[in-house]
Amino acid sequence: MKEIKVGLLGCGTVGTGVAKLLLENNEIISKRVGATLTLKWVADLDTETDRGIQFDDGVLITEAQKVVDDPEIDIVIEMIGGEGAAKDFMLKAIENGKHVITANKALLASQGNMLFKAAALKGVDLAFEAAVGGCMPIIKSLRESLVGNRITSMIGKLNGTCNYILYKITDDGSPYQNALSEAQLKGYAEADPTLDVEGIDTSHKIAILGALAYGMEINLADVYIEGISKITPLDIEFAGQFGYRIKLLAISKMRDGSVEARVHPTMIPFDNLLSNVNGTVNAIMVSGDAVGDIMLYGRGAGMMPTASAVISDTVDICRNILTATAGRVPALSYQMDQIRPIPVLSIEEISTHYYFRFAALDRPGVLSKISGLLGNHGISIQSVQQKGRKTDGAVPVVMVTHLAKEANVKKALSEISQLDVVADTPVLIRIEDEKLD
Amino acid sequence: MKEIKVGLLGCGTVGTGVAKLLLENNEIISKRVGATLTLKWVADLDTETDRGIQFDDGVLITEAQKVVDDPEIDIVIEMIGGEGAAKDFMLKAIENGKHVITANKALLASQGNMLFKAAALKGVDLAFEAAVGGCMPIIKSLRESLVGNRITSMIGKLNGTCNYILYKITDDGSPYQNALSEAQLKGYAEADPTLDVEGIDTSHKIAILGALAYGMEINLADVYIEGISKITPLDIEFAGQFGYRIKLLAISKMRDGSVEARVHPTMIPFDNLLSNVNGTVNAIMVSGDAVGDIMLYGRGAGMMPTASAVISDTVDICRNILTATAGRVPALSYQMDQIRPIPVLSIEEISTHYYFRFAALDRPGVLSKISGLLGNHGISIQSVQQKGRKTDGAVPVVMVTHLAKEANVKKALSEISQLDVVADTPVLIRIEDEKLD
Repeated sequence: MKEIKVGLLGCGTVGTGVAKLLLENNEIISKRVGATLTLKWVADLDTETDRGIQFDDGVLITEAQKVVDDPEIDIVIEMIGGEGAAKDFMLKAIENGKHVITANKALLASQGNMLFKAAALKGVDLAFEAAVGGCMPIIKSLRESLVGNRITSMIGKLNGTCNYILYKITDDGSPYQNALSEAQLKGYAEADPTLDVEGIDTSHKIAILGALAYGMEINLADVYIEGISKITPLDIEFAGQFGYRIKLLAISKMRDGSVEARVHPTMIPFDNLLSNVNGTVNAIMVSGDAVGDIMLYGRGAGMMPTASAVISDTVDICRNILTATAGRVPALSYQMDQIRPIPVLSIEEISTHYYFRFAALDRPGVLSKISGLLGNHGISIQSVQQKGRKTDGAVPVVMVTHLAKEANVKKALSEISQLDVVADTPVLIRIEDEKLD
Repeated sequence: MKEIKVGLLGCGTVGTGVAKLLLENNEIISKRVGATLTLKWVADLDTETDRGIQFDDGVLITEAQKVVDDPEIDIVIEMIGGEGAAKDFMLKAIENGKHVITANKALLASQGNMLFKAAALKGVDLAFEAAVGGCMPIIKSLRESLVGNRITSMIGKLNGTCNYILYKITDDGSPYQNALSEAQLKGYAEADPTLDVEGIDTSHKIAILGALAYGMEINLADVYIEGISKITPLDIEFAGQFGYRIKLLAISKMRDGSVEARVHPTMIPFDNLLSNVNGTVNAIMVSGDAVGDIMLYGRGAGMMPTASAVISDTVDICRNILTATAGRVPALSYQMDQIRPIPVLSIEEISTHYYFRFAALDRPGVLSKISGLLGNHGISIQSVQQKGRKTDGAVPVVMVTHLAKEANVKKALSEISQLDVVADTPVLIRIEDEKLD
């Protein structure tokens, strides 16, 4: 049986999972592949920590360079993370004719176009199933399963941290800061949670998926990003009264030749399956002209689920090696020479449904003033509720709109916030609900 | 750009969808594949029906034989259905060195082992993504995405007809026959619904998936099958009171080296995502040692969703043709020489949770007699409810058990049905609920 030699760079959480799977499930993998996978090197600066794995003598080393330079190594798995050393070693591995696997969404989102070109030029594979959605086969589904479809939209719950926090606010009614602290205690949020809670991690993912779906280059710069730190228990409660839950969603749509790409807290109806995906689990709904909607669901992070996706890539590449082919499936789903720039709409250009909350002074005519200004900008109200009454202060007025253009919404809200009967900056949360059309 | 020539056998509903996709999305498919796909022949005995497609002159013919014999044809797509002509043309196409795609689950479930061997021997691909779950990429996920996992279980809602009927009974409280008639009116059920409502179609699917998951031959004979025709609005109502919905599920589990494979009406908790998949949509939850649970969801039937899966296979094969390889991924997921017989447990050997409904005469000591007999067979009750009271007749006693062995359950129910205080044959519905353990 042919032997394929693998080198692992970085043995942190996911790297450890990859090593475990390669060792513990080696026999079942080889029954499927028809070749033996040998984990020849594991390079990590920390060779002391007990990872619960008994490596053969000499496998665990500190020099990543040795791995990418070893002519016996067929596949390099990059689990270092970050955009410095990870990139350098990937490029060196590619230059040395090795196939590369990564889960490094930040690096791919910012420099993937260059990296994929380098790999294609050298005739090696650069695989990244684990970069988006952990164990969910979303990359393979877009590149292979949905290949007969024009993809029309993707709506994903792709960040476990954010959605755990939103779930805690919803479930306990605890404010954002408390929910964040609990997420940090449980290990679901980093000490510096910015990348997750500000939507940045999610933007990396949707930038990558957009390229795969529509045949464009990865365009991170034009993804609109809004995090969850301003979401209050109050808005979550009102959302519930309208029949919605709030999730941080990544939304990407093809609209008349332009792309919408946005990450923000979003209200979705209870009866949308995505709204029932709780906690840290990821899910994505992909719509195509032939399939209608399909949904994938699975753990988006964690040692073994992410490792499972890395092994999926590893086996794909092994199968390419065994059949003496590479680049069998183009990395970005479309043939490299078919990738075109596609304009990405600014957030002002999109149209969707909106939830507003105004802190209105409890005086006659408030609602008429607000709705008049909305009407002036062509925004029609689907539903409005005035919540409770206070004699000496503001009361929340919440409303849900029909389809409206964001630019008009912004103008109207700016005018409304200047009304003397409106006490505070209005709250705006976008809604994803087909039934409102 | 290289041209790959495709011949289609059978232009019914799904065949028409395949032809449409190949023609209407030809450009986007070729941007992804890097080759042009030409639909050279469409063979169907009916050349008169308007299918909404403008075929070029001479494409639509009546002779399937001409397609499988044409040396220019690379790929034959079999959409004839049934186990007669479909099989003969497939074998002939394989013999002539053509790759074959089919959605024919009945044929694969009964004669797949022979067909896959024939294809492997000839060095051609035999692809069948559309045979299970319509557009959901369950075949690709098992063969490629989950390849690093030991699959431990699969629980699928794989038959739209049954689940539409159960949904109607649940929603309207209408009896089975009415719900079936409505399904027939809407085109969701055939005039002869036996294949669907008796669970036979679902058994074909789970037999195929079991082979892929565990590395065994397709073993249809040993799948336990029970249809939905005995499900009453009463049991659906009681299920709801226990927090369950009833779905026809396909369940396949690996248990200590043996396989459970069964199709039957099953109660699942409201908070299980599968329980929220309504109507004709399919979904499957797959569990593996690395991924935990992943779920796929999508339309399990219909012209375009099924055609999307066929095109996924077509493109896979095109990519193999372009890289001069075949059998890159083994048809049944494991290398042919690694496929082993694995014992399938009889239904008596399985252990699960049960719902019982007894028609008990309203006399003192009934419950004690019933629970005594259950206890004699080691069956312990998790919850019991006596529903309403009638002075002159039977009242329903419903209960949910802890984990129990089916053989013991059958013995106990047989004894209970002979009690003079029990009026009718007890009703048994299996429950899939991890929280009951």
